[in-house]
Amino acid sequence: MNKLLIVGTVAFDAIETPFGKTDKILGGAGTYIGLSASHFNLKSAIVSVVGDDFPQEYLDLLKAKNIDISGLEVVQGGKTFFWSGRYHNDLNSRDTLDTQLNVLADFQPKVPADFKNADVVMLGNLHPLVQSSVLDQMETQPKLVVLDTMNFWMDCALPELLDVIKRVDVITINDEEARQLSGEYSLVKAAAKIHEMGPKYVVIKKGEHGALLFNSDKVFFAPALPLEEVFDPTGAGDTFAGGFAGFITQSENISFDNMKNAIIYGSNLASFCVEKFGTERMEKLQKEEVSARLRQFKALTQFDIALEN
Amino acid sequence: MNKLLIVGTVAFDAIETPFGKTDKILGGAGTYIGLSASHFNLKSAIVSVVGDDFPQEYLDLLKAKNIDISGLEVVQGGKTFFWSGRYHNDLNSRDTLDTQLNVLADFQPKVPADFKNADVVMLGNLHPLVQSSVLDQMETQPKLVVLDTMNFWMDCALPELLDVIKRVDVITINDEEARQLSGEYSLVKAAAKIHEMGPKYVVIKKGEHGALLFNSDKVFFAPALPLEEVFDPTGAGDTFAGGFAGFITQSENISFDNMKNAIIYGSNLASFCVEKFGTERMEKLQKEEVSARLRQFKALTQFDIALEN
Repeated sequence: MNKLLIVGTVAFDAIETPFGKTDKILGGAGTYIGLSASHFNLKSAIVSVVGDDFPQEYLDLLKAKNIDISGLEVVQGGKTFFWSGRYHNDLNSRDTLDTQLNVLADFQPKVPADFKNADVVMLGNLHPLVQSSVLDQMETQPKLVVLDTMNFWMDCALPELLDVIKRVDVITINDEEARQLSGEYSLVKAAAKIHEMGPKYVVIKKGEHGALLFNSDKVFFAPALPLEEVFDPTGAGDTFAGGFAGFITQSENISFDNMKNAIIYGSNLASFCVEKFGTERMEKLQKEEVSARLRQFKALTQFDIALEN
Repeated sequence: MNKLLIVGTVAFDAIETPFGKTDKILGGAGTYIGLSASHFNLKSAIVSVVGDDFPQEYLDLLKAKNIDISGLEVVQGGKTFFWSGRYHNDLNSRDTLDTQLNVLADFQPKVPADFKNADVVMLGNLHPLVQSSVLDQMETQPKLVVLDTMNFWMDCALPELLDVIKRVDVITINDEEARQLSGEYSLVKAAAKIHEMGPKYVVIKKGEHGALLFNSDKVFFAPALPLEEVFDPTGAGDTFAGGFAGFITQSENISFDNMKNAIIYGSNLASFCVEKFGTERMEKLQKEEVSARLRQFKALTQFDIALEN
């Protein structure tokens, strides 16, 4: 089985949406990526850090999903990273109510020996120096390195972010972040500028409006599945990235055509994530549900126009 | 050849975008629909009204596109409908600077005798009473009636709008209008409520984010082509509707699968419309350009995932 190395936060979230609110629940980019990638036939490990307040049941959950957590450091006497946010009525924007870095402030990632030759590395949203450090520890060149980031690092650690962006094959960011990073409003132009920063593949996530995959002059688009209810968007982008990286890891194929499939799988998995609070839907998601929804994605997008020659 | 009857404004527009501004140029929903539908093998007619200030060269342009203008009334001593607007920097929103109804205020549409048995009727954005009057004049039941409208009529003439919506097969509106008309935020729920108002098919236009086609429990999505530059969005929605109605008219096929193709053709033609000011791009658009871009749409959206059984 191929190996996927994941770095990303494992955290507590407290979420408010127009439909309700949660106490501290399981969250973090690494968690969502790991749960999503667990739908593929691969070996995965999460590199992250938590405090000793992190419940054993959450660790057990990750292990039950066949995720190697030997690189998930537990800091004795430390507190787990905590994020709290409130979504607006349209669920497209949110206010951060509280961020407590806690053990994340001094996090030194340690890649498990068995994953220093991982086939694919998924660098989830974290400080770019942490992302770079993970790449530094690899003993063989991964077939594909995927990086996810956000506007926070563009504001606070741009030089470090640009350094790590140079080293990756694929970057996944949302539309506003692509515009901020490139200084271009047109997403076509933004992708072209981000190509020049290093990544051969640029994935622009547009939330409910789908995702675009750019590779020099080629472009592919995957819609989001139109849903009756979006309950909680938390983790949707990470779930998308985890599905993308997981599918690539399993298939061992980094052609553009296969990346199209990876984007569809990512969108498919993300469409489940938003149906319940936090990780609830992803924890119980069954293979049959994923397959059935994949058929919906086909019906949603495939057409058959005879093209004149 | 099958017949397409178009009702919609033929007008003067004055447009400001971040890229420049125009004096009074050719505009109007009927104009854009007619130019778009002229790319198909069909007979079309526009029912509309202008004043005697409307230049002969614009009438000649419509005739040169094989559009029957015997139902385009020229009011002697009257002035043509005029709209002026300014787009914001993101081109997604605009302010109306001036609206002069002029001859449109007392418009009584007259369907040419030769088009009272049209196969398809495209009711462009106009007062719902005008749209109803056109349907009243039909001597045979059209195979398909398509209606486009906007929030203005929801605010000012809702009962009349609901009356005409009852009588049509397809409604095309944008996402915000679908939400306003239905009172539902989720577009899936909005489409379901609009189905109950009459139309079997609900097309929700999302501008740069593509378009959704709903038919009871079936849904199809066509993206907008990612463009380097969007120059002027004026008329894009009408061009989309004209492409949709034109394709259906030519193909004589109102199955859901064929409507998917119609949505793709509409998106394809709209992608050209926005590349220049006003009707400029559509006036000179060649068949070969349309075919080439259709191939881009296929590449943009088609994928080949093996689905498990």
